[in-house]
Amino acid sequence: MALIVQKYGGTSVGSIEKIRNVAERVLENYKQGNSMVVVLSAMAGQTDGLIHLAREMCDDPDPRELDVLMATGEQVSVALFAMAVKSMGYDARSLLGFQAAIRTDQLYGKARIQEIDATRILKELEKNRIVAVAGFQGLDEKGNITTLGRGGSDTTAVALAAALKADVCEIYTDVKGVYTTDPNICPRARKMDAISYDEMLELASLGAKVLEIRSVEFAKKYNVPIHVRSTFTQERGTMVVAETKDMEKVLVSGVAYNKNEARITVKRVPDRPGTAAQVFEPIFKADIIVDMIVQNTSEDGTTDLTFTVPKADFQKSLKLVSEVARQIGAEKVLGDENISKVSIVGVGMRNHAGIAQKMFHILAKENINIIMITTSEIKISCIIEEKYTELAVRVLHEAFDLENGPTEDR
Amino acid sequence: MALIVQKYGGTSVGSIEKIRNVAERVLENYKQGNSMVVVLSAMAGQTDGLIHLAREMCDDPDPRELDVLMATGEQVSVALFAMAVKSMGYDARSLLGFQAAIRTDQLYGKARIQEIDATRILKELEKNRIVAVAGFQGLDEKGNITTLGRGGSDTTAVALAAALKADVCEIYTDVKGVYTTDPNICPRARKMDAISYDEMLELASLGAKVLEIRSVEFAKKYNVPIHVRSTFTQERGTMVVAETKDMEKVLVSGVAYNKNEARITVKRVPDRPGTAAQVFEPIFKADIIVDMIVQNTSEDGTTDLTFTVPKADFQKSLKLVSEVARQIGAEKVLGDENISKVSIVGVGMRNHAGIAQKMFHILAKENINIIMITTSEIKISCIIEEKYTELAVRVLHEAFDLENGPTEDR
Repeated sequence: MALIVQKYGGTSVGSIEKIRNVAERVLENYKQGNSMVVVLSAMAGQTDGLIHLAREMCDDPDPRELDVLMATGEQVSVALFAMAVKSMGYDARSLLGFQAAIRTDQLYGKARIQEIDATRILKELEKNRIVAVAGFQGLDEKGNITTLGRGGSDTTAVALAAALKADVCEIYTDVKGVYTTDPNICPRARKMDAISYDEMLELASLGAKVLEIRSVEFAKKYNVPIHVRSTFTQERGTMVVAETKDMEKVLVSGVAYNKNEARITVKRVPDRPGTAAQVFEPIFKADIIVDMIVQNTSEDGTTDLTFTVPKADFQKSLKLVSEVARQIGAEKVLGDENISKVSIVGVGMRNHAGIAQKMFHILAKENINIIMITTSEIKISCIIEEKYTELAVRVLHEAFDLENGPTEDR
Repeated sequence: MALIVQKYGGTSVGSIEKIRNVAERVLENYKQGNSMVVVLSAMAGQTDGLIHLAREMCDDPDPRELDVLMATGEQVSVALFAMAVKSMGYDARSLLGFQAAIRTDQLYGKARIQEIDATRILKELEKNRIVAVAGFQGLDEKGNITTLGRGGSDTTAVALAAALKADVCEIYTDVKGVYTTDPNICPRARKMDAISYDEMLELASLGAKVLEIRSVEFAKKYNVPIHVRSTFTQERGTMVVAETKDMEKVLVSGVAYNKNEARITVKRVPDRPGTAAQVFEPIFKADIIVDMIVQNTSEDGTTDLTFTVPKADFQKSLKLVSEVARQIGAEKVLGDENISKVSIVGVGMRNHAGIAQKMFHILAKENINIIMITTSEIKISCIIEEKYTELAVRVLHEAFDLENGPTEDR
């Protein structure tokens, strides 16, 4: 007798037949006496179709209207889902963002949920109805439709779970859970039973792709237990939860990689206060997200500044930085798209030395050159040549013995 | 400097290119200094596509959820339209039913507009924005999405024009206006310059298909002038307005026909109070719309009861009526699908005798047998064999000289 929020992604609701399957799965839970709130994404392909339509209209569609357009995708899903449940003889109601009182800020296309008034949903649950909430959408304080950006349905689900004080938020996807690394490049990757919010945050942002990063932040903030699992099996997946004592014993939980970044180096930047700010100003203004930044100390009054940007923004960034480099008198700007980032993540690192050292050794043994390094409390990332990505992931996975369960501090 | 409400139907917004054309047309009016409110239907084909999707899910989709699904069609149109206007350098805002505060009753699929709070729209107009309102949809008092049924965008436009006290409500369609009869079967049909609400009501309900009947009722009630015109030319179309002295001189304004009805006769019904009520009870309960009803007086204590129903409901009606006929001891039930209704309409009839007589004569001269007759103040309808429909329309059109302007009382 729990309150369960379930979220099904685009592939899980990609056809009439699949929506029917989801309805049956939800009903199984409902018949066991649970209160069910179901968050749905747009049917697979719909979102791309709508974007295509908008781009046919104009190159740079108005953001407000793009959100009005995009919001129809989830609207179709929840209506069809509620029809399916009804046709099976049970009561269901679809609720759109405005009906579910999902209040966001006004950042069209990447709005953030500010508040959810759960009154309406609770009222529907009291009537024993299954509630289907359109993911990805909300309403700003002026009554405009907003969307949360790609993957936003995860955030909708977690935010609803927090507002409803749900017992669990189940995220259904086409994989079985969170793996120690990408099974596509490392067949020995192992599905984890549990992972902490912080580890998940590092893995998600590093490209684990299973959970949208903001939804994990939300879950951490409100301590919502997330269960990532497969739509196509009944197997338990991976619990994403607050850190436990056991987890702290784990030095490395997973290996992540990201091939979507490019590197830019500004050579011989005059080493005086304010130059870094000057270099990055046009980049930030263009809303380009800079990931790693490394600055080498200098002896001759100049310094080399290296950073990474998304590959999609590489050419634009190169142009912007070249201009500013000329202005401040830097020597030249170099760029490299053939890089990737490989990271190891684990909460146990926090209290343990030598992990970075071990990582560098393992890579060196395979003759993989490390171009840049950054570290956080629970993560070590190395930029390497892109062609070594798969090899690096595999040797790190093996060296930290992730195949046989977490590497413990023993 | 007028406030103009324009409505564009599904064919007018059937592609990205067409929506762009509509945006240009609206901008022409806007640049002349007019305040513009634009009501759009779903892109041609979309509504059918959505219905198909729902039927794939189940035979009898839940009405509430069907409305949630259907409402996405107009949402797509208004978003794309507003994008088009914005990309042309002008300001526009799309508003959905709930944002435009279009309050309806709760009859899903055929809701009626009860009230419109024009505050939000007026505020957008004050900011010199072009306002695009999604047709066909509203919100009931409990916050559920409702739709007004096919053709409902006309009603949205007229209701908005009434609420905004607009100077005119222009209904754009793929024909040039309201014709004296269907040009497809009578090439001499003439486009009328003006027609009264009452005449339009009779023509619309008889199948003129240009304007949704409820929108005309609405226009009559609030005295909203409607201008029916073509999306594809700049020509003036037909004004639908309150009756004028001139109109009263016109005996016959138009000839309409309807092939979508079937006839049912209950033979030798015991002639006692209450039997008619008994015959129709199951029909009304099944929400089947009965059009004409004729009961012959009897001499032997029985009576024949004849009525028409939509062809789509014919088999069902026949079954329901046969059951009740047995119960009340009627002799038998006959049915005929091969009928059609031909009608002449004109406000001038009201004060003029002999029109019906003339109609009967004209039909008789062509050996067209009249099966049933009904009359109203401004309309005479005859049920005839379906195969004579086109012939009847042509000879009536000619005999009342509709080709050369209204038949006047001279």
